Amino acid sequence: MKVVLSTRNAHKLQEVQRILAAEAVAGVEVVGLDGFDVPEVVEDGVSFAENALLKAEAAARATGLPAIADDSGIAVDALNGMPGIFSARWAGTHGDDQANLDLLLAQVADVPDARRGASFVCAAALVRPDGSRHVEEGVVRGTLLRARRGEGGFGYDPVFVPEGHELSTAEMSPAAKDAISHRGRAFRALSGALRTLARS
Amino acid sequence: MKVVLSTRNAHKLQEVQRILAAEAVAGVEVVGLDGFDVPEVVEDGVSFAENALLKAEAAARATGLPAIADDSGIAVDALNGMPGIFSARWAGTHGDDQANLDLLLAQVADVPDARRGASFVCAAALVRPDGSRHVEEGVVRGTLLRARRGEGGFGYDPVFVPEGHELSTAEMSPAAKDAISHRGRAFRALSGALRTLARS
Repeated sequence: MKVVLSTRNAHKLQEVQRILAAEAVAGVEVVGLDGFDVPEVVEDGVSFAENALLKAEAAARATGLPAIADDSGIAVDALNGMPGIFSARWAGTHGDDQANLDLLLAQVADVPDARRGASFVCAAALVRPDGSRHVEEGVVRGTLLRARRGEGGFGYDPVFVPEGHELSTAEMSPAAKDAISHRGRAFRALSGALRTLARS
Repeated sequence: MKVVLSTRNAHKLQEVQRILAAEAVAGVEVVGLDGFDVPEVVEDGVSFAENALLKAEAAARATGLPAIADDSGIAVDALNGMPGIFSARWAGTHGDDQANLDLLLAQVADVPDARRGASFVCAAALVRPDGSRHVEEGVVRGTLLRARRGEGGFGYDPVFVPEGHELSTAEMSPAAKDAISHRGRAFRALSGALRTLARS
């Protein structure tokens, strides 16, 4: 069964494919939006879950396939949980990881170490061909660094150290990151529903 | 009695002088930091009130004069109250009004009109020569526009329309703005303490 992941972010596609492959979700092939004509989605939901559903619904409608989507971001305590759902466009234009990260670090430059708590949050949505919907949320707590560390991952990975760990999520191996990450947690929680769908 | 306002922002100095003059706080002359050697303040408080006190204390210590300070900003509902205390450095460098405003509008470009509520918040602090402290907070509710309107005021004035009004705070006359503004409310609330100090 083909399942379309509603993203044009190659990093995200690779990461979700990897997470679901490790879960051994048999009979499910996750493909990206390449080759499909899916209109741009206005992500104007008020939560990660709403935005993930908006994206999954748009892909399901345009492709006729079961669709999954990820909406995720970093919620910084000192910024009342922002960038949050605005993480991907924090610097004003969508998907400029470097600008988003530079801006966030500059905004909280004066925030002391003791107040640099943050969460990575991911909502993973599934929209089935019959229109029914399912969302799971994954969260990992951690600390916001003052400068980048590591070359792996994407987005805010280089400035986030998960609680109980020493490495940033950009310094971890993919498997180590997936085991604890917000995205790993959210998509593993969704894997049961995908298995059921593949069997039906 | 000279009172020093702990700011290097000429707009803010002018506005506070105007507000207190309209209150007819007799015997109080509000001066800026020009000519005083006041070290740069690290504004690492967690609230407008804390930051206003940090600034007033630094000015009182360095000048030996009674000192007042303003910490203020815009709290946007859709951003969980941010930029908030980070308003003046929202785009990453301190005091770049144009960059701050452009960034904020870009971040919430997809937020629909019904969810564009916001507040202007101002904390006005007084630190007396004996070290005693006083803070008042003023708030005005309103709506965040999608583009600038008006040439008056400063900061986020061109994109904020107070509740019950049609004009942005940059389109209002100074007197009309002061009558309802967060800064007007905060400094009028502080004027009694200033009068008492001037009499003592």
